[in-house]
Amino acid sequence: MPNSVTQPRRYLALSGGVGGAKLALGLSKQLTAEELIIVCNTGDDFDHYGLRICPDLDTVMYTLAGRNNQQQGWGLADESWRTMDALAELGGETWFRLGDLDIATHLQRGELLRRGLSLSAITQTLCRQLGVDYRVLPMSDEAVRTVVSTDQGQLSFQHYFVREQCRPEVRGFEFRGIDDAHPQREFLELLRCEELDAVIICPSNPFVSIDPILQLPGVRAALVDCSAPVIAVSPIVGGQAIKGPAAKMLRELNLQSSAFAVAQHYSDILDGFIIDTADADQAGAITELNIVVHTTPSIMTTLDDRIRLATETLRFAATLGGDV
Amino acid sequence: MPNSVTQPRRYLALSGGVGGAKLALGLSKQLTAEELIIVCNTGDDFDHYGLRICPDLDTVMYTLAGRNNQQQGWGLADESWRTMDALAELGGETWFRLGDLDIATHLQRGELLRRGLSLSAITQTLCRQLGVDYRVLPMSDEAVRTVVSTDQGQLSFQHYFVREQCRPEVRGFEFRGIDDAHPQREFLELLRCEELDAVIICPSNPFVSIDPILQLPGVRAALVDCSAPVIAVSPIVGGQAIKGPAAKMLRELNLQSSAFAVAQHYSDILDGFIIDTADADQAGAITELNIVVHTTPSIMTTLDDRIRLATETLRFAATLGGDV
Repeated sequence: MPNSVTQPRRYLALSGGVGGAKLALGLSKQLTAEELIIVCNTGDDFDHYGLRICPDLDTVMYTLAGRNNQQQGWGLADESWRTMDALAELGGETWFRLGDLDIATHLQRGELLRRGLSLSAITQTLCRQLGVDYRVLPMSDEAVRTVVSTDQGQLSFQHYFVREQCRPEVRGFEFRGIDDAHPQREFLELLRCEELDAVIICPSNPFVSIDPILQLPGVRAALVDCSAPVIAVSPIVGGQAIKGPAAKMLRELNLQSSAFAVAQHYSDILDGFIIDTADADQAGAITELNIVVHTTPSIMTTLDDRIRLATETLRFAATLGGDV
Repeated sequence: MPNSVTQPRRYLALSGGVGGAKLALGLSKQLTAEELIIVCNTGDDFDHYGLRICPDLDTVMYTLAGRNNQQQGWGLADESWRTMDALAELGGETWFRLGDLDIATHLQRGELLRRGLSLSAITQTLCRQLGVDYRVLPMSDEAVRTVVSTDQGQLSFQHYFVREQCRPEVRGFEFRGIDDAHPQREFLELLRCEELDAVIICPSNPFVSIDPILQLPGVRAALVDCSAPVIAVSPIVGGQAIKGPAAKMLRELNLQSSAFAVAQHYSDILDGFIIDTADADQAGAITELNIVVHTTPSIMTTLDDRIRLATETLRFAATLGGDV
């Protein structure tokens, strides 16, 4: 499919971690490195043991490199835990599992940050070393940090997500630093570009993976004004999240745990929404939000599933055409 | 031998890395944790990949814990290099080999430094976790950084020592920050303590392992005034250093590469000097420096060698008695 048209197509994918990375991988099998930019949430980023850890960027990078650990569902394949075991012996904190191979990514990123490189440039360098040509970009080169308001008080995202394993009841979210952060330059340029073919919101958590991207100054307005169709793939299938706490969050925020609730959450920016066949009964209600619905099996278990969903997503975007 | 006297004896050992750690281990087999304080050079410390690396402290700590890698001669036993290999793949610098287990030490130390603990307190914590009861102390809680002047310009110590493998010709040394650094509190207190039984300068590099300790404000004067005998074990045997660049440095500084030259280097503070039987012919010249000489086989290959030399060192110190 790459190079099958003379004009390069241009797609922008917005992604969180694992679920988003699956669709991003599918898209990368259908589009060339010039045709696809993947912008990742960095609200989950945090500093731990002095290492700058960027879970979503790394998940997408590792997935595109074919290095992701498919059994475990996160992290690197063929990972080992010798440093972690030694840290435990030294009385260190071990709630965030840092693999020996993964630590290298964080050490090298930290080294390049200290040399003054931007997170964008660093991610590009790391991708290149891992054989990934695609542009995987942080949503911003400035720090935005997601804080989760819960019944147990405010928790930094990784404390909520990993240390407390999403057990506390969610009341809301704060993206610290977001008002002063600038959307990554290429990201914003592409969003405002007349030749953009589509914006694809990957099946990631709407509250903690996609909202930080959308709430960056100027992004939501650019998406509303965008000449290209904006489409999303529902992260909720049959009332459940494929992975992560999205369904639990919806319930705790007194929303329906449904594809419809996600569509409603994105309704000001969405032109199209892809839902699973399991949720076909919600198509009518979503259509009433002025969102075109495409129904298809959307659970991505195999690589073929990822490619097939990516192909359908691109075709669906094409049917929505230009400024809709 | 521990607890064989009613009054606890008190010994202070000054040490660099590998050679010093061997004697320190021997001493630890003869003295209780209350009787022995080991003060380590921190001039070799450096920040690499954002990690605070303290080679001499760690070598002594690992050696006393029985974790040192005896085959390799440095680092930890049963070490692995997965992070390092991954760093190489990411295009990172690999001239300083960081083992997976060793990285845990640096990560935990960094974490505790960021929490505001002193290097002394941190080292004590790490030692305790590794089952080492002995007080292993940094010479100072403040940063002192050794810079080597060479025919290729000034090099930070690890660049000279590891990256350039001691190839450049040495012209001199600078211990950056030393004028503003304070000797570690317990170290200085013990040095000024009436009940100190002996100061033992381990067979470490005089220029880059021991001189930084001696040049801390107040240390040299305290050693001169010290009521206890100050003795050293020669790091030069038969004109050669057992390990490291001491002999090469002596030659490049236009000094003899000999035990005598080391005695001369320390002559203002030494009461006694232990030389190898191979250097027995230098005893007379050293005695003329007003230093009592003890001659004994001093190469420490086995644990028994370490214990035997430690025993001889303690006995020799006892013969030198009080204020000599």
